[in-house]
Amino acid sequence: MKLSLNRRYSFPASHRLFRSEWTQEQNTQTFGKCANAHGHGHNYTIEVAVRGPVNPETGMIANLAELDQFVQEKVLRDFDHVYLNEQIPEFRDCVPTTENLCRVIFCRLSGFPHARVVSVRIEETTKNSFEYRVDEHE
Amino acid sequence: MKLSLNRRYSFPASHRLFRSEWTQEQNTQTFGKCANAHGHGHNYTIEVAVRGPVNPETGMIANLAELDQFVQEKVLRDFDHVYLNEQIPEFRDCVPTTENLCRVIFCRLSGFPHARVVSVRIEETTKNSFEYRVDEHE
Amino acid sequence: MKLSLNRRYSFPASHRLFRSEWTQEQNTQTFGKCANAHGHGHNYTIEVAVRGPVNPETGMIANLAELDQFVQEKVLRDFDHVYLNEQIPEFRDCVPTTENLCRVIFCRLSGFPHARVVSVRIEETTKNSFEYRVDEHE
Amino acid sequence: MKLSLNRRYSFPASHRLFRSEWTQEQNTQTFGKCANAHGHGHNYTIEVAVRGPVNPETGMIANLAELDQFVQEKVLRDFDHVYLNEQIPEFRDCVPTTENLCRVIFCRLSGFPHARVVSVRIEETTKNSFEYRVDEHE
Amino acid sequence: MKLSLNRRYSFPASHRLFRSEWTQEQNTQTFGKCANAHGHGHNYTIEVAVRGPVNPETGMIANLAELDQFVQEKVLRDFDHVYLNEQIPEFRDCVPTTENLCRVIFCRLSGFPHARVVSVRIEETTKNSFEYRVDEHE
Amino acid sequence: MKLSLNRRYSFPASHRLFRSEWTQEQNTQTFGKCANAHGHGHNYTIEVAVRGPVNPETGMIANLAELDQFVQEKVLRDFDHVYLNEQIPEFRDCVPTTENLCRVIFCRLSGFPHARVVSVRIEETTKNSFEYRVDEHE
Repeated sequence: MKLSLNRRYSFPASHRLFRSEWTQEQNTQTFGKCANAHGHGHNYTIEVAVRGPVNPETGMIANLAELDQFVQEKVLRDFDHVYLNEQIPEFRDCVPTTENLCRVIFCRLSGFPHARVVSVRIEETTKNSFEYRVDEHE
Repeated sequence: MKLSLNRRYSFPASHRLFRSEWTQEQNTQTFGKCANAHGHGHNYTIEVAVRGPVNPETGMIANLAELDQFVQEKVLRDFDHVYLNEQIPEFRDCVPTTENLCRVIFCRLSGFPHARVVSVRIEETTKNSFEYRVDEHE
Repeated sequence: MKLSLNRRYSFPASHRLFRSEWTQEQNTQTFGKCANAHGHGHNYTIEVAVRGPVNPETGMIANLAELDQFVQEKVLRDFDHVYLNEQIPEFRDCVPTTENLCRVIFCRLSGFPHARVVSVRIEETTKNSFEYRVDEHE
Repeated sequence: MKLSLNRRYSFPASHRLFRSEWTQEQNTQTFGKCANAHGHGHNYTIEVAVRGPVNPETGMIANLAELDQFVQEKVLRDFDHVYLNEQIPEFRDCVPTTENLCRVIFCRLSGFPHARVVSVRIEETTKNSFEYRVDEHE
Repeated sequence: MKLSLNRRYSFPASHRLFRSEWTQEQNTQTFGKCANAHGHGHNYTIEVAVRGPVNPETGMIANLAELDQFVQEKVLRDFDHVYLNEQIPEFRDCVPTTENLCRVIFCRLSGFPHARVVSVRIEETTKNSFEYRVDEHE
Repeated sequence: MKLSLNRRYSFPASHRLFRSEWTQEQNTQTFGKCANAHGHGHNYTIEVAVRGPVNPETGMIANLAELDQFVQEKVLRDFDHVYLNEQIPEFRDCVPTTENLCRVIFCRLSGFPHARVVSVRIEETTKNSFEYRVDEHE
């Protein structure tokens, strides 16, 4: 019997949706206001799901203190209060949409040693969220 | 690698749960206060999920502006500020429960041309929600 | 030393903003979609504030069970799952805007015998709320 | 075509994460502040999902009044305003983590006669939630 | 021109509403389920408001890092993950209702040296909150 | 009898807390991570309160469509999806803390012709908010 544990973290950051090989006109047509030359920002909330059996001694899927420390080291230390385009290496050659942010954060967290990370969901605003979830039947 | 994009919309509307071929007593027994002869209403929140690969150029599953326009045309233009029983053709012969509302809205949105609509979830109140989700393994 | 106790209740209801002595055109100009002939609805949330000294024996401003019973009798029993225009006497001659709903509910609750009702705030949607608050310096 | 209905309930309770066969030091190392000798508490929110076809006459998956009564009898009557370690028999020999609470509540609800209970999700705080979901492909 | 800064903190704790000089029957009559002999708990959210002029150099009413440290030392260090009746000295002779919790926390925070603490509001559940606010016209 | 109408708007934007006449060290000591050279961002939510008598004909304090248009013209058109430091003239010589943002937005909105704007409250994150409120007794 496997259960999921979902844990939420949040950080403010800024980004600009823009491809340097495109004209500003092409960028605006595709990204709208998000292509604004000076960028803009969000309070990103990420919800990490890990899934596994419950340890019969501790009654836990994973120790929250260990998960918190892992997310702090792999994600929050780098992403908190930054401009994603300039300060996160993965976005040097990749538009920092929330879809791509979701993939980048999932990759950074997938090595969690104590339980399987099965999903990363990011709320960009109260109206939008994006999720990567591993296929349980793979 | 496929991701999901979830987008929320909301609209106020009213409805009455009632079958004309039943007596008022039968209606009240089944639908409780929701069978009240003058109807009542809700702030409905719908969350539409589309799923697909991330376009490597734009970093997006689908363009939110295109999704918003599609949902506006297919759903919000008709459902916003109306009495569902009288003003939505699908409810002429079908009780406007939120289950049925979910099916009707999923059908209207399933033809979105730019990504696969995989789920429609509707919050009727902060305590209730209803969801139709396509089976990914079909 | 006086404190406030805020308690939330909610009920779904429907309404139509409309004055019968105006033309439909005048109504639509003033009330927009809210003048739709068949009405529409909301999940109304009301937050009632009572204010007073803390009883030194019980540690309470007022007994929540007593407040709940009073609000049930004076407001919820009548307002839950109804069409405000037709089923609430105060709206026979008065447009059921949320401003007026706030006044009507404050009047019904002002006689609470165990503490002073100082405010009624109503959330019509997550974007709008309306509040009547007594002037503490009267 | 099957849909899901999600319904939320909440209750305050207290617990202590602690194994009597361990030393206090081992307990604190594993459970942190949650091993505090006097316990602590939460407002638990549980979201129950049932899944099934929509009844063509009533337009409903299951009658909410029947689900509410079942959850009241099987869960809320026992769990509301209690100390889980002492007052819930299932926790006599089992640490009352939210993972275990999720399993216990799922077991109590799985016999709902009118639709299949497919998931129980519990929010312990706004940052943590835990979910048991049946495998739809079993 | 004075502004207010509101900052939210939360902690889980347990309590029991009970007066030892009363019979259990009197306690149950006054406090209902809250008088349960083993206690129960909540996720308490406290919102502290400070008010003052905006420093023209820093653009701030008060430094959030200093407020956070003060609240940590005066409140969270003692109140986080505890049983209020046994572990908070102020509740040795005083029922730990949320009204009294609000007064106790306000007293502990009123000495903040960098701005005037004008209000403490505590959410006990999503339906109840309690507030002490200083009279600005004193 | 005067009531208040509260209306919420939101926009994403980025900012950097920084005084050019200070060293980076002084900036970091005062503003912490908010002094990061590339800035960061937030989803700002603003709640505007207007207060006045209820028009006996329309049942409204002010027409929401008129308030929305005014806020769009005076605030949202300029503040939505921008970098506050560079793109809002009021922040040329003034640190764009949320306190100052609150003052700037109140000034821009204070000329609303149809009702008195009595308060602007801005949520920077779910933990922080800032409010300017006019003194009703002036």
